[in-house]
Amino acid sequence: MSKIKIAQFGLGPIGLETLKLAATKPWVEIVGGIDIDRDKIGRPLAEVTGDPTIRHASVHRSLDELLAKVKPDVIFHTAVSTVSAAFAQVEPMVRHGINVVSSCEELLFPQLREPELAVRLDKACKDGGARLLGTGVNPGFVMDVLPVCLTGVCRQVTAVHIQRVVNAATRRGPLQKKIGSGLAPAEFEQRFQEGRAGHAGLQESAALIAHCLGWKLTELVETGKAMVASHDIRTRFVEVKKGQCCGLHQTAIGKVDGTIRLTLDIKMYLDAPNPHDACQIEGDPPLNLLINGGVAGDGATVAALVNAAPRILKAPPGLLLMTDIGVPSFA
Amino acid sequence: MSKIKIAQFGLGPIGLETLKLAATKPWVEIVGGIDIDRDKIGRPLAEVTGDPTIRHASVHRSLDELLAKVKPDVIFHTAVSTVSAAFAQVEPMVRHGINVVSSCEELLFPQLREPELAVRLDKACKDGGARLLGTGVNPGFVMDVLPVCLTGVCRQVTAVHIQRVVNAATRRGPLQKKIGSGLAPAEFEQRFQEGRAGHAGLQESAALIAHCLGWKLTELVETGKAMVASHDIRTRFVEVKKGQCCGLHQTAIGKVDGTIRLTLDIKMYLDAPNPHDACQIEGDPPLNLLINGGVAGDGATVAALVNAAPRILKAPPGLLLMTDIGVPSFA
Repeated sequence: MSKIKIAQFGLGPIGLETLKLAATKPWVEIVGGIDIDRDKIGRPLAEVTGDPTIRHASVHRSLDELLAKVKPDVIFHTAVSTVSAAFAQVEPMVRHGINVVSSCEELLFPQLREPELAVRLDKACKDGGARLLGTGVNPGFVMDVLPVCLTGVCRQVTAVHIQRVVNAATRRGPLQKKIGSGLAPAEFEQRFQEGRAGHAGLQESAALIAHCLGWKLTELVETGKAMVASHDIRTRFVEVKKGQCCGLHQTAIGKVDGTIRLTLDIKMYLDAPNPHDACQIEGDPPLNLLINGGVAGDGATVAALVNAAPRILKAPPGLLLMTDIGVPSFA
Repeated sequence: MSKIKIAQFGLGPIGLETLKLAATKPWVEIVGGIDIDRDKIGRPLAEVTGDPTIRHASVHRSLDELLAKVKPDVIFHTAVSTVSAAFAQVEPMVRHGINVVSSCEELLFPQLREPELAVRLDKACKDGGARLLGTGVNPGFVMDVLPVCLTGVCRQVTAVHIQRVVNAATRRGPLQKKIGSGLAPAEFEQRFQEGRAGHAGLQESAALIAHCLGWKLTELVETGKAMVASHDIRTRFVEVKKGQCCGLHQTAIGKVDGTIRLTLDIKMYLDAPNPHDACQIEGDPPLNLLINGGVAGDGATVAALVNAAPRILKAPPGLLLMTDIGVPSFA
């Protein structure tokens, strides 16, 4: 079997971890990176990642510059959260026939907020003979794909309720800040309203589930509140005083004709006790799933991206949904 | 969207339930049944199923007789447990271009026991332009597809351990007998050794997981013991005295070069307390899944079959694995 040529777009913490995990796979050949950071451009990836096994590959300033040297089979895209920001980055890739696995949260189900861009991306994929997939652990698995998978053994499904509790103290610094650690609770909620803080992709998770179950949601409402620290908290990255925001409690509620069919509830805060992922399917049979401890964050996200690469290559060209390709699997 | 024309091969309890569930779907048109039971041949399906909504469809004695009248898009095949027995039934279907979803346990991964027949079935599918899938709830979901799905967010997987506990008192009569209820424990174990009792498909579940994870099992050993009744038990279907067999405890252990990588453990017995499905992934991250109450049996099996029909139609022709087609989903 010939190896899959992999390049990485975006060399932030997640991008570097993606690259390092990919480099451990016998089916991967790392061929290059792309980043706008002048301190990284031109340097060997071995040096930038700290992984000496990544040889003969360096950081380029643009897709064109990378393509002048080598054409990857798959690019891992870890750069932005919105489809509108991702479009200009990924559209040229798929037009060139390069398959893309992206951590862009809205790309899990781009039809929700950007239906026109979704159509254009699908066309560009088909014109170029490439696949484009948005995935990750959340969105991309615990609050969407896994619940959908459960419904595969149901005769009837009337509602899906999902809860995720993450102890953010175990997560990376940028995430600890994104959830509002150290802000006044009212300030976090203001920022959430303005779209400047919070967990991205919750509505996309809800929309993907509704799509799979054939539900036309007549209402989809998202809320975001601050979790308030009950004691002073200090992590490696942030310091939070009692009474300040130490994280978020975010929900998305989907209704069909006034009836609640979907509840997605995520609490992500410092020192959260009993982290877990849970899902209740109301239906026949009813199902009650618990992942004790939860699916731990960043490492799992990186794994979801890398593991998806072989699966998308088996799918026909196009803008793909996680639920349309093969069942998630370690690769 | 035009409806999917469905026929049913095998009109035992599972076949009848499959047909009745399929009849509730807006995307289904029931076109006929096939069974060797003379008491059913020629009768309207509405009468045989007791479902008056199933119109203009009756029971035929053979595939040829059905085909003389109508060509289904999909046949649900619920008749036998072994590939060797299923072959003569399903091969003509796929050769005629009819897609098949089967409850035949060994068809979950026919490559394990019947690699040559698997090759022939795959070729017949491709020649005829049809898909063939073996599925169900177990095998087909709780002890194979669901654990594989979890590994999709893992950076590394070193072992997979799965436990299923089923309270057989809540299941259909034939299953209560299949698990040895009322036999002397030694007699059940004798029958298990001879392949005349026990849960079919456990090794197939193990083999499918190994296939997905890229593990070449060097050893795969199955054991079956009787569960012994600690008190007299009476169900609607069987009567068991204290000390008699009231069900089974079956395991499949898969090793790679002497190291245990897979443990599948199923207990299915009358009055089993705390029924559940559980799975532990040893890896990075480790994952610990519990379905409290478990995925309840027969209704879920029927749902798995019916829900798979739209998904196989999106896949290219061939002998399919559950993990190769789209993520399981209510349809």
